[in-house]
Amino acid sequence: MAYTAAQKIIKAHLVKGEMITDSEIAIKIDQTLTQDSTGTMAYLQFEAMGIDKVQTKKSVAYIDHNILQTGPENADDHLYIQTVAKKHGIYFSKPGNGICHQVHLERFGVPGETLLGSDSHTPTGGGIGMLAIGAGGLDVAVAMGGGEYYITMPKIVKVNLTGKLSPWVAAKDIILEVLRRLTVKGGVNKIFEYAGDGLKTLSVPDRATITNMGAELGATTSIFPSDEITYKFLKAQHREKDFVELKADDGAVYDETVEIDLSKIEPLVACPHSPDKVVLVSSLKDIKVDQVLIGSCTNSSYVDMMKVSKILLGKTIPDDMSLAIAPGSKQVLNMLSKNGGLGDMIDAGARILESACGPCIGMGQAPSTGAVSLRTFNRNFKGRSGTTSANVYIVSPEVAVASALTGYITDPRELGEAVIVDMPEEFVINDNLIISPAQDGKDIVVKRGPNIKPFPKAKELIGSVTGKVLTKLEDNITTDDIMPSNAKLLPFRSNIPYLAEFCLTPSDAEFPAKAKKYDGGIIVAGSNYGQGSSREHAALAPLYLGVKVVLTKSFARIHKANLINNAIIPLVFKDFKDYENIDMMDELVIEDAANQIKKGIVIVKNITKKTEYETLPEVTQREEEMLIHGGLINLMKNKKKVGA
Amino acid sequence: MAYTAAQKIIKAHLVKGEMITDSEIAIKIDQTLTQDSTGTMAYLQFEAMGIDKVQTKKSVAYIDHNILQTGPENADDHLYIQTVAKKHGIYFSKPGNGICHQVHLERFGVPGETLLGSDSHTPTGGGIGMLAIGAGGLDVAVAMGGGEYYITMPKIVKVNLTGKLSPWVAAKDIILEVLRRLTVKGGVNKIFEYAGDGLKTLSVPDRATITNMGAELGATTSIFPSDEITYKFLKAQHREKDFVELKADDGAVYDETVEIDLSKIEPLVACPHSPDKVVLVSSLKDIKVDQVLIGSCTNSSYVDMMKVSKILLGKTIPDDMSLAIAPGSKQVLNMLSKNGGLGDMIDAGARILESACGPCIGMGQAPSTGAVSLRTFNRNFKGRSGTTSANVYIVSPEVAVASALTGYITDPRELGEAVIVDMPEEFVINDNLIISPAQDGKDIVVKRGPNIKPFPKAKELIGSVTGKVLTKLEDNITTDDIMPSNAKLLPFRSNIPYLAEFCLTPSDAEFPAKAKKYDGGIIVAGSNYGQGSSREHAALAPLYLGVKVVLTKSFARIHKANLINNAIIPLVFKDFKDYENIDMMDELVIEDAANQIKKGIVIVKNITKKTEYETLPEVTQREEEMLIHGGLINLMKNKKKVGA
Repeated sequence: MAYTAAQKIIKAHLVKGEMITDSEIAIKIDQTLTQDSTGTMAYLQFEAMGIDKVQTKKSVAYIDHNILQTGPENADDHLYIQTVAKKHGIYFSKPGNGICHQVHLERFGVPGETLLGSDSHTPTGGGIGMLAIGAGGLDVAVAMGGGEYYITMPKIVKVNLTGKLSPWVAAKDIILEVLRRLTVKGGVNKIFEYAGDGLKTLSVPDRATITNMGAELGATTSIFPSDEITYKFLKAQHREKDFVELKADDGAVYDETVEIDLSKIEPLVACPHSPDKVVLVSSLKDIKVDQVLIGSCTNSSYVDMMKVSKILLGKTIPDDMSLAIAPGSKQVLNMLSKNGGLGDMIDAGARILESACGPCIGMGQAPSTGAVSLRTFNRNFKGRSGTTSANVYIVSPEVAVASALTGYITDPRELGEAVIVDMPEEFVINDNLIISPAQDGKDIVVKRGPNIKPFPKAKELIGSVTGKVLTKLEDNITTDDIMPSNAKLLPFRSNIPYLAEFCLTPSDAEFPAKAKKYDGGIIVAGSNYGQGSSREHAALAPLYLGVKVVLTKSFARIHKANLINNAIIPLVFKDFKDYENIDMMDELVIEDAANQIKKGIVIVKNITKKTEYETLPEVTQREEEMLIHGGLINLMKNKKKVGA
Repeated sequence: MAYTAAQKIIKAHLVKGEMITDSEIAIKIDQTLTQDSTGTMAYLQFEAMGIDKVQTKKSVAYIDHNILQTGPENADDHLYIQTVAKKHGIYFSKPGNGICHQVHLERFGVPGETLLGSDSHTPTGGGIGMLAIGAGGLDVAVAMGGGEYYITMPKIVKVNLTGKLSPWVAAKDIILEVLRRLTVKGGVNKIFEYAGDGLKTLSVPDRATITNMGAELGATTSIFPSDEITYKFLKAQHREKDFVELKADDGAVYDETVEIDLSKIEPLVACPHSPDKVVLVSSLKDIKVDQVLIGSCTNSSYVDMMKVSKILLGKTIPDDMSLAIAPGSKQVLNMLSKNGGLGDMIDAGARILESACGPCIGMGQAPSTGAVSLRTFNRNFKGRSGTTSANVYIVSPEVAVASALTGYITDPRELGEAVIVDMPEEFVINDNLIISPAQDGKDIVVKRGPNIKPFPKAKELIGSVTGKVLTKLEDNITTDDIMPSNAKLLPFRSNIPYLAEFCLTPSDAEFPAKAKKYDGGIIVAGSNYGQGSSREHAALAPLYLGVKVVLTKSFARIHKANLINNAIIPLVFKDFKDYENIDMMDELVIEDAANQIKKGIVIVKNITKKTEYETLPEVTQREEEMLIHGGLINLMKNKKKVGA
């Protein structure tokens, strides 16, 4: 039978289930990566499983999110991750070494392997032919422990590239075009597999820009074949031994096809406040720009940076422009510092930031009130820049730098002849900020600063569940509402007791106090509860506060999975009218909860109102087990005991 | 008559008073500088004076403190400063251009002129023979308006340098030796004037390191003569036209002399938590180091950086070391990026930070809990790093980098032959991040983001002053207690209403609420009230909250001046026993306050206790006028009206 590239990897890693679209399958994970804002929790969870050494081929812990360090919390987290990594067989990439996705591409990624990362832009690895998927920290912890990763077998969408990009048009414009056509909801339960004649015109960094921002489609992942271009990239990284060819078989069957003629694409821009609000750059040319930021896991490769540098050469930004550039990795920064490219940027008036996520996650460079900011990043959600009133546009490096020079949104084709930057034959290799794990971690002492708090653990489900309705919420509550994330709270991602003080406060300021007063309870909400970011802290904070059940009209997929991982019971009203008949502080009871869940219908009795509701748990058998055993970690531990 | 170099400058700028030690004199100010954490307030105050254009020879507004920008406040402040500078004849140094003192030395400082800066390390300018003094923002605003600056005529201390430093011993070790001998209180009301044969062995950056950290002596300022070495430095900056020779006359009389034989100095280190806790580096060699930071206005010159780079060349820092380097200016960063020096740092594993104050003011790179951090900075006060439990040591770049390589506090003489870096014949000159003011500022619109709040204005003193005792405090309350400063509050330096919510809260959490409830009132405190940092926000926040009088056993000098500038009446108990007889919430009244202050004795009646106290205002006639007219700004405005 003929397979696509993605199907080949899935087939080779399939542990459970069958490759039937929309059915649950489990795959084996070869590599994992974490970053520091999700990593501390992932390693605490890994430790809780009681496994000495990671079971993956390679696991890497990166520090790239919390590197401003305005208090001891960040450095404490870094030290914890560094020591826990050394003890348990995990490579550690020190702060300053760069953005996880850029460094992983350069130094660790292997075509044909699976990569699970606790960061939503993990699909960047698809640029060298990996099946690279973003997931919650607990899923990554389980994978490190040798556990399989469960997904719904996705549809495979062929993105057929023909022709060649015109001068000044960039890989970024390709993914913006895909987003323009399909929107941010267009990729759910799909893998985007790039194919066609146009492939040979795209370098590995080009491909990685596309798979990276494929995350904005809501896709499971995106992938390019591994070909001669991949080989040359790996060889230039002194990693030709890691090369494996990977391509779709002739006659492979795709679920859908998207045709893109590269020669027809023009420079594009995603307007505020969504990556799919895509229009032609040329249509916005009178908009004054206050700030331009170049970098992030989407566009911070050596070639991107050198293009920017060459365009800036000998020029100067306007007085009222703020231009900041963050090369993606130590390797990139180092090469720019050795070949004069960095000096040319500095000469033009650019601020040079550390190689890290930085402003892309609101960590620095928040623009002024109401400012227009052009960024080569991947997301322009309202407020993500740190400035709620700012208007953030997502563009290619070419559009960014052209606009930085003119002070207005500028089609780079106005600059005349396009600059050409060739991929280097050989990258500067110096891995001295990557620390290898100990051969034998037995004697390594894990350092736990005071910001490293134990994470809350769920309990086995026995007998009845009772509790008060602590809050009653509207439709479309996001994980940002449940567990706010900003420059002030990000340093506390390993400190659930502290974070819990802010749980659901954007919707209900009294929620944490009520949960404490009544020793936990039940959340009632409308539809699409838990949409947005995949952060599992939106389940861990409620767990810490004693929340036992969340009763809604419907759940967002990933948040529901996070609740189940942590043994918080997700229930859906069978009759939406019942939502109207529940009030805050009503006392609810679910008798013999485990057995009701197994039956697939759960009766929730409202003691206060002397009535009852039919609700649906909507869980698979595996999820049932998790709810009953007290979450994924307890399930893993119990299975280990059984196995022992 | 024979004069010292400092006396020559004072004499040439004397506006009021006589050059008699300890008497009040006023001098004309040629240049001013501000940074952004004090600058917003200084420019708001300047605007309040209603003067179109600065009256100085040159005024420069730098952005170097608040450049992390995790919310819109910083960028709003930058935009305000940029536009207000353009309107009123002030040069503007954009973020990324570097630390005010380093850039001012490179591009603006002129030997023989006076410089007043709203930053305590303004004496750096003494390195090229300026009389450079740090002051509060309001004093700088007044100087920009053409007003004189009042000081007590200081004693002149001759620091006679003989011999030559040994290899691996640095200018930093000279000032550490001075601090070791004289302590942080040793410089009060003194100018340290460097002289002797040893001068010719010290470059301008060496000299600037010494005058910079002279601030830690509590000195009025420090100064070097302007000689051939100064000329060469200015010539290499293409500024030879700014050169003026300046040296002490033969036979000049000094109040004190300190003799230092440079050849006897060994590498030194200031231990936690004070810059005068100085010991030999060799005495601490078993102390493990977690973090090394190189930069700040004290040690971030081109030569400092190139020494560091050469020492790092071909080496690698240990796995558990965090080394971060912040070149002091765009000029320095640019030169390092062009000559390969930056690449050598990166190769060794250094993190490169933006050219700014950064970690020296707690803005980033806070070490982990209990960590040992070696820094080339000037202050190691407890908690200033952002980590209260950290142990911060102050050292030379040579000691810093030697320790970064070994992982332990290391005497650099162990590294073998010393590296030699010559001063460049020519610096890279590119001032495109310095914005010139408008020729005619009339049409320039000043941009005021929502973080730019009007500052509180005092009122004329008419009739009686009454109020409740809002709080009663102990001895030694610092300006940090009165107006806390940290990474969370620094962005709000132009937002007194917000800052006021934190006024005195470390000592009395209810203070702001009480002040609001009772519409202001009176503060009662013990001795040495207002010690520490010179920040005038410690007067502005109480003014905003309606504080009319501060009644204590004694005041710290600068804070008392700030209270008077803002027309808050400082009174001292004549009989300290009266302090015991006042309680919180007592109602006090001062009848006919203006006249009582003029008489020099103020009777404070305690209505609640039916008693009264004799108190002393201890103000000069000029200060009296300020209290009566409603502060310095109103006084300036009233004088302008009279003059018009």
